[in-house]
Amino acid sequence: MSPTPIILDCDPGHDDAMAMILAAYNPNIELLGISTVSGNGIINKVTENALRVCALAKINVPVAQGAGASLLGAVEAASDIHGETALDGAPLPAPTFELQKMHGVDLIADLVRKCPEKVTLVATGPLTNIALFLKMYPELRERIAHIVFMGGSASRGNRTPYAEFNIWMDPEACDVVLKSGLPLTMIGLDVTHQALITKEIFAKLEALDTEVSRTLSGLMRFFAKTYNDVFEMPDPPLHDPLAVAVLIDSAVTKNRFVNVEVELNGTHTRGATVVDIYNRTGYKANVNVALELDFDRFWEMMLDAVDKAGR
Amino acid sequence: MSPTPIILDCDPGHDDAMAMILAAYNPNIELLGISTVSGNGIINKVTENALRVCALAKINVPVAQGAGASLLGAVEAASDIHGETALDGAPLPAPTFELQKMHGVDLIADLVRKCPEKVTLVATGPLTNIALFLKMYPELRERIAHIVFMGGSASRGNRTPYAEFNIWMDPEACDVVLKSGLPLTMIGLDVTHQALITKEIFAKLEALDTEVSRTLSGLMRFFAKTYNDVFEMPDPPLHDPLAVAVLIDSAVTKNRFVNVEVELNGTHTRGATVVDIYNRTGYKANVNVALELDFDRFWEMMLDAVDKAGR
Amino acid sequence: MSPTPIILDCDPGHDDAMAMILAAYNPNIELLGISTVSGNGIINKVTENALRVCALAKINVPVAQGAGASLLGAVEAASDIHGETALDGAPLPAPTFELQKMHGVDLIADLVRKCPEKVTLVATGPLTNIALFLKMYPELRERIAHIVFMGGSASRGNRTPYAEFNIWMDPEACDVVLKSGLPLTMIGLDVTHQALITKEIFAKLEALDTEVSRTLSGLMRFFAKTYNDVFEMPDPPLHDPLAVAVLIDSAVTKNRFVNVEVELNGTHTRGATVVDIYNRTGYKANVNVALELDFDRFWEMMLDAVDKAGR
Amino acid sequence: MSPTPIILDCDPGHDDAMAMILAAYNPNIELLGISTVSGNGIINKVTENALRVCALAKINVPVAQGAGASLLGAVEAASDIHGETALDGAPLPAPTFELQKMHGVDLIADLVRKCPEKVTLVATGPLTNIALFLKMYPELRERIAHIVFMGGSASRGNRTPYAEFNIWMDPEACDVVLKSGLPLTMIGLDVTHQALITKEIFAKLEALDTEVSRTLSGLMRFFAKTYNDVFEMPDPPLHDPLAVAVLIDSAVTKNRFVNVEVELNGTHTRGATVVDIYNRTGYKANVNVALELDFDRFWEMMLDAVDKAGR
Repeated sequence: MSPTPIILDCDPGHDDAMAMILAAYNPNIELLGISTVSGNGIINKVTENALRVCALAKINVPVAQGAGASLLGAVEAASDIHGETALDGAPLPAPTFELQKMHGVDLIADLVRKCPEKVTLVATGPLTNIALFLKMYPELRERIAHIVFMGGSASRGNRTPYAEFNIWMDPEACDVVLKSGLPLTMIGLDVTHQALITKEIFAKLEALDTEVSRTLSGLMRFFAKTYNDVFEMPDPPLHDPLAVAVLIDSAVTKNRFVNVEVELNGTHTRGATVVDIYNRTGYKANVNVALELDFDRFWEMMLDAVDKAGR
Repeated sequence: MSPTPIILDCDPGHDDAMAMILAAYNPNIELLGISTVSGNGIINKVTENALRVCALAKINVPVAQGAGASLLGAVEAASDIHGETALDGAPLPAPTFELQKMHGVDLIADLVRKCPEKVTLVATGPLTNIALFLKMYPELRERIAHIVFMGGSASRGNRTPYAEFNIWMDPEACDVVLKSGLPLTMIGLDVTHQALITKEIFAKLEALDTEVSRTLSGLMRFFAKTYNDVFEMPDPPLHDPLAVAVLIDSAVTKNRFVNVEVELNGTHTRGATVVDIYNRTGYKANVNVALELDFDRFWEMMLDAVDKAGR
Repeated sequence: MSPTPIILDCDPGHDDAMAMILAAYNPNIELLGISTVSGNGIINKVTENALRVCALAKINVPVAQGAGASLLGAVEAASDIHGETALDGAPLPAPTFELQKMHGVDLIADLVRKCPEKVTLVATGPLTNIALFLKMYPELRERIAHIVFMGGSASRGNRTPYAEFNIWMDPEACDVVLKSGLPLTMIGLDVTHQALITKEIFAKLEALDTEVSRTLSGLMRFFAKTYNDVFEMPDPPLHDPLAVAVLIDSAVTKNRFVNVEVELNGTHTRGATVVDIYNRTGYKANVNVALELDFDRFWEMMLDAVDKAGR
Repeated sequence: MSPTPIILDCDPGHDDAMAMILAAYNPNIELLGISTVSGNGIINKVTENALRVCALAKINVPVAQGAGASLLGAVEAASDIHGETALDGAPLPAPTFELQKMHGVDLIADLVRKCPEKVTLVATGPLTNIALFLKMYPELRERIAHIVFMGGSASRGNRTPYAEFNIWMDPEACDVVLKSGLPLTMIGLDVTHQALITKEIFAKLEALDTEVSRTLSGLMRFFAKTYNDVFEMPDPPLHDPLAVAVLIDSAVTKNRFVNVEVELNGTHTRGATVVDIYNRTGYKANVNVALELDFDRFWEMMLDAVDKAGR
């Protein structure tokens, strides 16, 4: 089987860094390029972080900066979780190459046009770039194989009681994606909260004993601390790499194909992903929603990628 | 300690019947009267059911019929769960006494005025009567000790992905209650889905071997079947009696005192109770939300009440 | 033709005072009683004002105090328009009789039950009492001939760009009325802004030269000043009496029978009455909406009533 | 004074055709290019119409096709008003030049980049392209002098009771524009309903007696008929050219600088522009709203442009 060509749209961010490494160092994935979007930090910070993670892990693909604000405009960063730089916890090397001189959305379009196969878009931040791509280049829609996004929840959220951070940051962009008619996979908190960096995982990560693993361990320990402070979770969840993992091995999660809508209008629920598991609404299924994780299978591929990145 | 005087506002309904029996047959509770509200069935059906459960269990308190539609008017019944009569599954005796010749809301006002102590309102249906009582008789507000309501959820709902049935039926009434400033306890799906009628519980219920226990067993087996059909739950949850149980012994549940708002405006989330466990919104705490159940403690008092009712 | 029996639900208020006088002193109207509702002022002020206007104009009907807050609870007064007492501008005599010892909603129910004919409800304040009456006494619904309410607009509002004050104060109550299925007439700003107290009208009012007319002139001059300050209208509009006038002579206004909905959810438009004059929505007509005024016909009956009240 | 450089974003459409001609044949305007957007018709029809109007009126500027659906995706055409082709009523010549091979939004960006002066954007259709331009090219924001849009209303709408067609088609795009912080002028129904094509105007148009004037007369007579059928207006309003006219001579309209918000959430009011003329909300002024038209001044410049286009 040939590797799946993907473009990673991300806002690094601790778990985005891990998603970049998994995408770059697994043989089943062909990472075509990276676009950035404001989310875990403001756009220039997350773009800088993307370049630094590339430098750390010797990832060499085109990177372009994308949207710096949501479709309807608000800018906000998750600094309570990711710290001042959006990737606090360990020093990162300076960038070793330059940004593409084009908008992230145009990089996506460019890479999709050039790829002989249909391309999968993997989004681990707010869905702003993906929505703008769908709006600006409707003729490329048929060149997209699949969109996998980390975001949303079938139960509680983390930014508000019912809204997960990535979706809450740009609910209208999520709506564009949900209504796109393309094959969609949602990696929500239901499953990412099973991808915990437990003490055993920390031990395995540190046992790799490379510069990459040591740096990542520092980053993850920062992330662990803020998660515990804010959400009373002793082991932090590693959200974003799951959106890559399900493309490497679909058995990593158990999914249900159901209707998902995003709430745009609620006074207290704006940004909630409304996942109709028991088909109470009668709406048509549009999203494959990951609900259960094969913990061991995921961590095996994740640690393997970190190991390779460090050699 | 003297028993807690309560008025039970309900829409029987299978689990309401069990709440009536627990309220009538526990020495820590003084049941002053019963008002009915449309919900599990239309108002004349649930009122008839209330009278028949009184006849079955020899409960002799004033009963009055209350609101037949929500504040904003829609009428809907949960016949997929409770069947055609709203209490299908076993024959019930004919009523042995007559309804009060007044509106349920006026019965509540009347009983509150006459009671020398402050009264606790226990609501196991939509909150329409309670809201109308608060609006019509603001001068009696200070005579209310506490409102305990079965309804809502801190995670998923059962009528829509995020709305629980009782709240979904009258979100505006819930809003009136949440903003009342009175002491509030919410018995939501988080905790009622722990009050399962397991095979062991069915066995204990049937071992009581009275006419009451046999009838209740028939009712509960009907309820178990519909719950399994609709929600894939092999053991059905006995929601309503928990709203009485927490008044008998506060150790039956573990609670958190947090902010709860009800979504009135969402396109897909109307009727969701938004429970801010981690104080992400900064809104002021207003509700004691039950989150964990002491299963054994609950079932002991419930089965004891059924036993007494059958003697 | 026998006079039309009405109950006046009001929040006096300058224009409410004029509505009371028109209802009491026109032979085509039989004023059965008056209920008060918070709106132009808080409930105890408007109730006091109702009793004082009765004293001034020798109106002798039962008066009861009704709802002191909207269905969903907010209290707000239009003191920018009606002043500190809600009826500033001239001293009023002390009340000469006492309030009924019952809630305004119960007075409505009582009067409706006793009246051999169907009764028309005329509301010149927020629709809270009317909605509570419909909810509490559904069996009396068929005893209501007609509901005429002053409120709403087919174009701009006065409390917000699209919401008129009475409707904005209790949009949910308006929704209950609009969905009641009863014959409805809406007297909105479209037509009340044609009922201006022009210089000529002021001259005619003052020419009556009774204690009543002098007092009313003082009140109206206060009202004129605040309207000019807030809305740049040199002649103030006399909203409320039109809701009585259309029952005296239906030729006072030209109406269209169209669909009206009230916006409950808008971020910027909550409380707007959405009047579908050209049937763009396809929704069913439910309200007779007054759009054009016969200015002379209205003022003739209004001044005639003031004259009679002063003799 | 040098002419004002503008880009016209339009959805021809009868009145759009007139706006094109006014922009092309008035010496105070330098028309840099034309982008199209779905609205009065689907995108390929309105693009074809733009090219045909260019052929008719010998307009020779770059034309590119833009967005074929609103930001949140619905496609709808105003065929009740503009007919099957979106420009029914008279035959139009075949296009004489080809579309630019780029997205309309990219044409806007390109023309803005190349223009030595700041550019004014004139939008006479839904605001989708303008919003996408602002999102995709934030670095060009400071190169925009002014945005003038035909759309919205300070009173009633025409697509729904409160929503005007262009805004209703893409309320989120309008929100992006209203929040852009750029100088904004709104040409809403308040003023366009004063720009009537009266019998006298039809006579003057037809007296020009050129091929262009004859064709435009045929188009306008079709438009007059549909307006009368749908809105009971004997003389149809010529909306779009006013958005050009105010740039030619600011005395054509009288304006107020006030706050305008667009309703995104209302059940019955979505797409309403909420114009706070009397500052009831306290929100900050952001739009210059045209409220009164100098009829003669407008028609003089409009008919002059038609005359020049026909020579």
